[in-house]
Amino acid sequence: METARIGVTGLAVMGRNLARNLARHGHPVAVHNRTAARTKALVEEFGDEGTFLPAETAEQFVASLERPRRLVVMVKAGAPTDAVIDEFAPLLEPGDMIVDGGNAHFADTRRREAALRERGIHFVGTGISGGEEGALHGPSIMPGGSAESYEALGPLLEDIAANVDGTPCCTHVGPDGAGHFVKMVHNGIEYSDMQLIAESYDLLRHAAGLAPAEIAEVFRTWNTGRLESYLIEITAEVLAHTDAATGRPFVDVVLDQAEQKGTGRWTVQTALDLGVPVGGIAEAVFARSVSGHAGLREASRNLPGPSRSAVAGSGFADKVEKALYASKIVAYAQGFHEIQAGSAEYGWNIDAGAMATIWRGGCIIRARFLDRIRAAYEADPSTPTLLTDDHFAEALGDAQDAWRDVVATAARIGVPAPGFSTALAYYDSLRADRLPAALTQGQRDFFGAHTYRRVDRDGSFHTLWGGDRTEVSA
Amino acid sequence: METARIGVTGLAVMGRNLARNLARHGHPVAVHNRTAARTKALVEEFGDEGTFLPAETAEQFVASLERPRRLVVMVKAGAPTDAVIDEFAPLLEPGDMIVDGGNAHFADTRRREAALRERGIHFVGTGISGGEEGALHGPSIMPGGSAESYEALGPLLEDIAANVDGTPCCTHVGPDGAGHFVKMVHNGIEYSDMQLIAESYDLLRHAAGLAPAEIAEVFRTWNTGRLESYLIEITAEVLAHTDAATGRPFVDVVLDQAEQKGTGRWTVQTALDLGVPVGGIAEAVFARSVSGHAGLREASRNLPGPSRSAVAGSGFADKVEKALYASKIVAYAQGFHEIQAGSAEYGWNIDAGAMATIWRGGCIIRARFLDRIRAAYEADPSTPTLLTDDHFAEALGDAQDAWRDVVATAARIGVPAPGFSTALAYYDSLRADRLPAALTQGQRDFFGAHTYRRVDRDGSFHTLWGGDRTEVSA
Repeated sequence: METARIGVTGLAVMGRNLARNLARHGHPVAVHNRTAARTKALVEEFGDEGTFLPAETAEQFVASLERPRRLVVMVKAGAPTDAVIDEFAPLLEPGDMIVDGGNAHFADTRRREAALRERGIHFVGTGISGGEEGALHGPSIMPGGSAESYEALGPLLEDIAANVDGTPCCTHVGPDGAGHFVKMVHNGIEYSDMQLIAESYDLLRHAAGLAPAEIAEVFRTWNTGRLESYLIEITAEVLAHTDAATGRPFVDVVLDQAEQKGTGRWTVQTALDLGVPVGGIAEAVFARSVSGHAGLREASRNLPGPSRSAVAGSGFADKVEKALYASKIVAYAQGFHEIQAGSAEYGWNIDAGAMATIWRGGCIIRARFLDRIRAAYEADPSTPTLLTDDHFAEALGDAQDAWRDVVATAARIGVPAPGFSTALAYYDSLRADRLPAALTQGQRDFFGAHTYRRVDRDGSFHTLWGGDRTEVSA
Repeated sequence: METARIGVTGLAVMGRNLARNLARHGHPVAVHNRTAARTKALVEEFGDEGTFLPAETAEQFVASLERPRRLVVMVKAGAPTDAVIDEFAPLLEPGDMIVDGGNAHFADTRRREAALRERGIHFVGTGISGGEEGALHGPSIMPGGSAESYEALGPLLEDIAANVDGTPCCTHVGPDGAGHFVKMVHNGIEYSDMQLIAESYDLLRHAAGLAPAEIAEVFRTWNTGRLESYLIEITAEVLAHTDAATGRPFVDVVLDQAEQKGTGRWTVQTALDLGVPVGGIAEAVFARSVSGHAGLREASRNLPGPSRSAVAGSGFADKVEKALYASKIVAYAQGFHEIQAGSAEYGWNIDAGAMATIWRGGCIIRARFLDRIRAAYEADPSTPTLLTDDHFAEALGDAQDAWRDVVATAARIGVPAPGFSTALAYYDSLRADRLPAALTQGQRDFFGAHTYRRVDRDGSFHTLWGGDRTEVSA
């Protein structure tokens, strides 16, 4: 009996395309789906792309895999993943691998990994970014799990991943939930990046008075420079598109209520647990949320607007480019801070520069910019923040007056720019000699006796606010 | 044997003061602590304030309570609360009440309430705000749990709560976790309020060039107007205070690293789950978090600052007052939005106006301002947002040019004002005719086939971006 090198169960579009990608690269792939019709359809439609071994039952599927078995699960995150694990785990043997390629929460992945490890089975939570097209033509792949499992899986995954300058967009991220954690933060950064692009568009439209087609041209130009990236590229495409039904700009016929699937939210919730400030990602999640509150917006539509409606002067597009670049540096610095904090918390030992490297291709945030991040971590692997890297610090210094002007203009004329604003406030907070947090600590000591520390000596102190206001050691 | 009307177990400062408050109001109170020394000390020190029935064992404690028993637990949130419940529940009978007065997460309260309900015991998760002083002299009390339990507990709790204009700062919030939920949001609003005050101080210091003592005067003046509140009052006190050891302003000798205990973080994480935008609270939590990252700040200290350092012109303090008032309206609007969303999600039927009413005294955010919120909900109990209330809308309209100037000034001269900025962006987002979320949806459809809706007809649509770019129904 012919055996497959790897198997994919769950043949919705992502699973199907991943299986095809494997087959196209010469890897015999076992395919299985809860309803067999999908398995049949895949083989009928794409059977000539490589070697597919269709299986109708879980037992057949497992039996068709060479050992140790590599079993890729491509089902909905949550209960369906647990159901598939419960179905297949009893059929596996020690040393076999279950790869979860869905968007699981890393805490679930940690739980599943620990449970399966006790049975000798490797559970490999794997972030896969790039959507349908990426799955077929080369995604960015972020596998967690044991180093041993990566030895058996890595060559296959690197083979089907995107490839930039000869380097595959796949590497072993770290143990247990590390892969899904990094994928989550990737998505959080994606939210932030998209929000900054949305604000840039909004400002060019309402501060500079440009039409969507003109703004498409601005983005096209930006895409030839340091902002070159997939998201900037498709922004130009979307803005240049005309709605066939009405002849209007496409962006004007789309309902302005953004949706979300949860990974941005998780990124912020996790950052809060880790004590990492990620204002850029939070504002992006909230901006989508605000946009979707139709009733709230309808009720608020007549709230008074500003008295000024100044049209921005010439050169405004260049200022927005600088604001966008500077804010993008902050967004990525926050995201990488979260990765490093998660790595420290869970003992994952994640190589941050390697994450930048595998995001250069295949995924939604792929960008020339990521080479800069990789270089920053090569120059100083233990840097506490990307902001202080020579290139980024210089870019921020060069951009900042324009960035400040853009934030000020947005505030004055009433165009919401929460992403630009929070990025600038983060930058100014970090470089501040003194923060008003000293006042906050004083208040907390006043109303709750929470104590404070002093700048001039060690220890914790409390002032007897209700008494004679002397200071006591706490 | 004499019986007590109510009992308190856990006699650290909050529990002790609550027991004294009960005794002072003429309610015989049983007192118990894991280590009996504390019980003894309480009775020795404060025994003349009322009737205390000290108990050494859990059995004695329970036996000394009149039926149905009212047992208040004042221990650390988390595992200690569960341990106390496990100890006492077996000694109780159907109809008895366990009141948890700690800062529990509302999800834990829901879990505990459900478990005890099966045994016929009422579990009453109760938010208590006001710190040590409040516990003794009259806190704001937010009890959840069953309506039946409130019949037995309400008169006692209302008796010891703060009282404003004859109205006690205590009411039945709603079933199971509603009380702890509302207390959590109260704390989130407190974070936001404190952050806005901190930014006001920072701007008066670094944009207007005032000294702490001068700024104390500004806050004292503000405290005679619409901003009148406990937090503004103590801000003036803290800023006017001189450090005895150095002769320097107290605020300058306090280490500028703010700490936090978790309820602000919970408020944001819960809001994310509920889909409620609470940028003001999130930025406040992040600002504390940034301030505490000493290494990150040290590394970033030499990042380039702005070329401008313009000192703000005359009248700047008045502008800051307007920015503070407007941003405060937004902070409370976001908090109340979260309360209403939580109430809808969990079926609590919370009376939002009543929450404003019981926060007018006893708690940290007590303020004249809360009468305005109460009035707003009286005028329109189902309003989707406080912003559109006549008074608030007018105040926002009046404040907004100053608010915009303050945000713009902060951006230009490099003083971080994330709270003011996010509040303004929220305001401008809500009143926007169109948001760039339409572009976001277009991008999502482009890279992930996530579909979009149209402004001109129902349904979900997808553009064949990789093909001839026609639109299909999804």
